[in-house]
Amino acid sequence: MASHDIERLGARAEAMLEELAAISEEPDRLTRRFLTPEHKRAAHLVGQWMAEAGMSVAEDALATVRGHYAGEGEAAGANAVPRLLVGSHIDTVINAGKYDGMLGVVAGILAVEHFRDQDRRFPFAVDVLAFGDEEGSRFPTVLSSSAALAGQFESRWLPGLDGDGIPLEQAMRDYGLDPQAVAAAAMRRDEALAYVEVHIEQGPVLEHQDAPLGVVTSIAGQFRSRVTVRGMAGHAGTVPMAMRQDALVAAAEMVVAAEAIARERPEAAMVATVGTMKVMPGAANVVPDIVEFVLDLRASSDAPRVKALAEFTHRCEKIAAARGCSVTLETYHDCATAACAPWLQQGLARSLEQLGLPAPRLVSGAGHDGQSMSKLTDFAMLFVRCKGGISHNPAEFAGIRDMGLAVAALITFIENFDPAGHRA
Amino acid sequence: MASHDIERLGARAEAMLEELAAISEEPDRLTRRFLTPEHKRAAHLVGQWMAEAGMSVAEDALATVRGHYAGEGEAAGANAVPRLLVGSHIDTVINAGKYDGMLGVVAGILAVEHFRDQDRRFPFAVDVLAFGDEEGSRFPTVLSSSAALAGQFESRWLPGLDGDGIPLEQAMRDYGLDPQAVAAAAMRRDEALAYVEVHIEQGPVLEHQDAPLGVVTSIAGQFRSRVTVRGMAGHAGTVPMAMRQDALVAAAEMVVAAEAIARERPEAAMVATVGTMKVMPGAANVVPDIVEFVLDLRASSDAPRVKALAEFTHRCEKIAAARGCSVTLETYHDCATAACAPWLQQGLARSLEQLGLPAPRLVSGAGHDGQSMSKLTDFAMLFVRCKGGISHNPAEFAGIRDMGLAVAALITFIENFDPAGHRA
Repeated sequence: MASHDIERLGARAEAMLEELAAISEEPDRLTRRFLTPEHKRAAHLVGQWMAEAGMSVAEDALATVRGHYAGEGEAAGANAVPRLLVGSHIDTVINAGKYDGMLGVVAGILAVEHFRDQDRRFPFAVDVLAFGDEEGSRFPTVLSSSAALAGQFESRWLPGLDGDGIPLEQAMRDYGLDPQAVAAAAMRRDEALAYVEVHIEQGPVLEHQDAPLGVVTSIAGQFRSRVTVRGMAGHAGTVPMAMRQDALVAAAEMVVAAEAIARERPEAAMVATVGTMKVMPGAANVVPDIVEFVLDLRASSDAPRVKALAEFTHRCEKIAAARGCSVTLETYHDCATAACAPWLQQGLARSLEQLGLPAPRLVSGAGHDGQSMSKLTDFAMLFVRCKGGISHNPAEFAGIRDMGLAVAALITFIENFDPAGHRA
Repeated sequence: MASHDIERLGARAEAMLEELAAISEEPDRLTRRFLTPEHKRAAHLVGQWMAEAGMSVAEDALATVRGHYAGEGEAAGANAVPRLLVGSHIDTVINAGKYDGMLGVVAGILAVEHFRDQDRRFPFAVDVLAFGDEEGSRFPTVLSSSAALAGQFESRWLPGLDGDGIPLEQAMRDYGLDPQAVAAAAMRRDEALAYVEVHIEQGPVLEHQDAPLGVVTSIAGQFRSRVTVRGMAGHAGTVPMAMRQDALVAAAEMVVAAEAIARERPEAAMVATVGTMKVMPGAANVVPDIVEFVLDLRASSDAPRVKALAEFTHRCEKIAAARGCSVTLETYHDCATAACAPWLQQGLARSLEQLGLPAPRLVSGAGHDGQSMSKLTDFAMLFVRCKGGISHNPAEFAGIRDMGLAVAALITFIENFDPAGHRA
């Protein structure tokens, strides 16, 4: 592909990302959580783009927008053919950057647009997917929309509450969706050939290696555990230190312990994060009686991750007992390490080589919809270099040329895609 | 005083507290904030009781109800004599107990009623005061009503807004008061001999010592400091532990440090509490970049309290620097220790001894109107044991006999009160 085509594709991607980033729950920063009115506006815009690129568009029970670019024959009225799935997500964290997720959706649309412009069809269909719950920034679920498509949605997620006490199932109805239709969102295994996702790296590895793109080998496994510490409320002035059962001091020691446990295991690329904490009753002059926080624990393989969570649980129990407090851990998310299919990794690497690029391999420390999709079909990911490794932050940035290269690599990958490749 | 008289006084107190507790802004729990219609109803009831006990009753510009039991001669038409001030407050926190504040007002009324029944006058008058803004549960002020009486009211408080956006001065007018008359609420120094307050302990010390009553040595001085920790946001999966600037782990270490600093200073009765904390951006998968919390630090004297805050500041700076974070402390409340006058403490202790009670001394960790009143005159406090040290809670409880003993002790104190005692 000519250099000016790559620049043009990158500029198109940038313009589309800019348009999507304008749709936010908050005036001065980008926040677009699952099933909010802003999610709906973004989904509508993506659906429009898909239609303009020559796809038929549908929405499933989890609000996933599905653009379908028909295969050879199918477009002329023959039976449906299996699909190559390409996608990412359009929900964001609070105060997000504009590349995370959206770039993968936009790349898929631009690739299909390229084929439509050439009037080119393949022996397979190409479905572009825009998921809505990858970040888990609203409900106590993550990847629920790709889980539904992969037939992995668990009905116990439906009553889960957001921060305003709204259950997921209510939010679905408010959005105009039918919680009864979740099962129908599942794709059959014989309908899907593979799932491929373009995504910014969200880490510093590619930048450090001076490589615009990289091929992912696996997505790190992850726990999310809700930790609840219970002590005894009291007047901040009148309860002597020795008589306190302060739930926040106990929780603070647990936060420090979580960090220590991860630091002790660099060989497993382990990371532990407490990103949210609620202190109750929450008045400056009352000793806290209940503190809730969420531990996010990830590693490049599952055994050390399981051992680390057990050790954290043990340390929490010791900390609580020493303070006359109690603690409970509820692990509501346990996602195994998901390996990318070697034949798809090879296909992506060959595309990078055709573009004259190096093809470094790397682990994804972040979770992605591929974790759900791996239960349905083989999957792979193409990472795009981002500045400073910064993500989940307004300073998140990917260059126009890097994005153009990513779209070009996806186009090349699809052109070379052999549905029988997994048997090779 | 005979045991059955003590029981009778306690039962009277309990009945009056029950009647006051029925006056609430909310149907199922006790909430009576400053200058609400319910405050007015409670003030009216207290004024009735004062009149029935033989006092003349007035209301000042801050709605403080003032019952005046005239001194010898004064009752027969002679010039006014200086007053011994006795009182507490009739406002409450949200979801309050029925003893906090109200017991001190009721004890004063029952003491005067006792003297009226004996037709007994003193060379000094006894004024019973029912303040309305001790809890600070409505406006961004505390102790404004006792401050006005002590000539310490600051006019900058008048535009302060409640949670519904109503300024204090508007609420005063709505109640039927004149904001212009605040200065006239100030008592002259030569009018006041001393201020004595009966109050539940709101802590566990007297119960632990098996003593119904205790003599307060001082009201602890207090700092409130807002601590802001700034780090760098990042993706919880992709930023290696060694590259993080996690504001929450830093804040957690600061919370633990605050506790250690207070525990190291039991001789200063030091208590440190972090009761509220805000973690930003507040998503489970984002390394926190900003954490705000409030430190409440109290001690029985000012020098160790000032040193402790300096040490806490130093430790916070070290913790932040070690993590590539920054920290700022803004101390928005600094209330000096208010020492109870030794001659009044001795008077109270002698009264307890006359009743055959131990007279343990203790610090008040909670704030009280005595802090304002100390600017006008010498003051002292008599603490009453409360169950489990629980206060600011519907489970707050003081026993009938303990309350009867408190009224009896106040009666004995007044009978023995020597206006020239401070010169001894």
